[in-house]
Amino acid sequence: MNLRALVFDTYGTLVDWRGSVRDELAAFGRARGLHHDWDAILADWKACYRPGMDAVNRGEAPWTTIEQIYRRRLVEVLGLRGIAASEAELEQLTRAWWRLRPWPDTVFGLTRLKRRYIVSPLSNASFTGMVHLAKHAALPWDCIITAENAHRYKPHPDVYRTALTLLGLRADEVMLVAAHNYDLAAAQALDLRTAFVPRPLEYGPGQTSDLVAEGKWDVVADSVEELAAALGC
Amino acid sequence: MNLRALVFDTYGTLVDWRGSVRDELAAFGRARGLHHDWDAILADWKACYRPGMDAVNRGEAPWTTIEQIYRRRLVEVLGLRGIAASEAELEQLTRAWWRLRPWPDTVFGLTRLKRRYIVSPLSNASFTGMVHLAKHAALPWDCIITAENAHRYKPHPDVYRTALTLLGLRADEVMLVAAHNYDLAAAQALDLRTAFVPRPLEYGPGQTSDLVAEGKWDVVADSVEELAAALGC
Repeated sequence: MNLRALVFDTYGTLVDWRGSVRDELAAFGRARGLHHDWDAILADWKACYRPGMDAVNRGEAPWTTIEQIYRRRLVEVLGLRGIAASEAELEQLTRAWWRLRPWPDTVFGLTRLKRRYIVSPLSNASFTGMVHLAKHAALPWDCIITAENAHRYKPHPDVYRTALTLLGLRADEVMLVAAHNYDLAAAQALDLRTAFVPRPLEYGPGQTSDLVAEGKWDVVADSVEELAAALGC
Repeated sequence: MNLRALVFDTYGTLVDWRGSVRDELAAFGRARGLHHDWDAILADWKACYRPGMDAVNRGEAPWTTIEQIYRRRLVEVLGLRGIAASEAELEQLTRAWWRLRPWPDTVFGLTRLKRRYIVSPLSNASFTGMVHLAKHAALPWDCIITAENAHRYKPHPDVYRTALTLLGLRADEVMLVAAHNYDLAAAQALDLRTAFVPRPLEYGPGQTSDLVAEGKWDVVADSVEELAAALGC
């Protein structure tokens, strides 16, 4: 392989969004003396993710950052349960998506890979969201590339193509690393290299999707550190 | 000041392009047994910089990265002196612009500023050029933003506006740091904060421009470390 760069899906693949955001929702509840099923509220909140992005990809909505999509849905999700929240509380909770805990292997694995390769996120997060997350979680990126650079969301091909253009590299010089088969399939269709790092607890103990490789990915590894080892780093 | 991010001009402000590229030209000459005035050749080469960018800004040329502009001019500059160069040599010399030495205060100053602020380049370099330079010179960026993200060159206002959009910040939350008054003037016109860090040897001992502040900049500092101290880092 003539690999020069690795680009990473981030939510789920590198950071535990579920545990991190649920803890912030629960802390909000405790501070307000509210008793709710915060796991269910989070699942309901997160459910806006794909439809909001698909509307942008189909051209039905103008470019909208994932924070704007999350913020709008949070108002609905809380409203449905009769939970009032101030503007400051809504902002604080929406920004919980910038304060996510990395999986234990993430930072060490990226640090090893960075010695030999360019490492960048290729996330559906906003650019600024990814910058803040990197500072929070100490993700040692060489640069930040997100859906915002393309004004389209993965798996739209423009997102992967934008990464290749910005990196000045050919598709076969770039590997997408992701915990999601759909993302890898879209990258492979454009001739990028692919690495599957399953995260069987991303959605909690009852997860049923993305437990196994559903395509012929170039590498399958149980962690980012194992990926680094597989690539000789 | 409500400062959240600092964006840096890079060539000249943070790295010594002149000394670094001249050394690579001279090494090329030695390897080939050529005797030329490499300082003069570099000055001639660098002279393409502004006209090439202005043509893009006026819409007379499509988006063209600075490497493409440099590469084209290098062929002319060598050709005028009857110096033949292979494709590999042209590529190697053009990429000299990715292998520049930081000024002695650059890495320490950025590291101090990064503790409190988001730090990013805002350079007329290509995105990939800035990624490679960061790895070469150990510039500890939080993210990379360049003219390529706007498809316009500084001092076109779109470049500064693109940085604000990607960072998700207001103009008064972002400071441009530059060794060039024209760059600071363009940023200030859009209400960004400004810091002048003069580099009186950027163009060598006979430099006549940008020796002193020519506007009311928010901070004037002799080095990036002094800037960090001025901002309480």
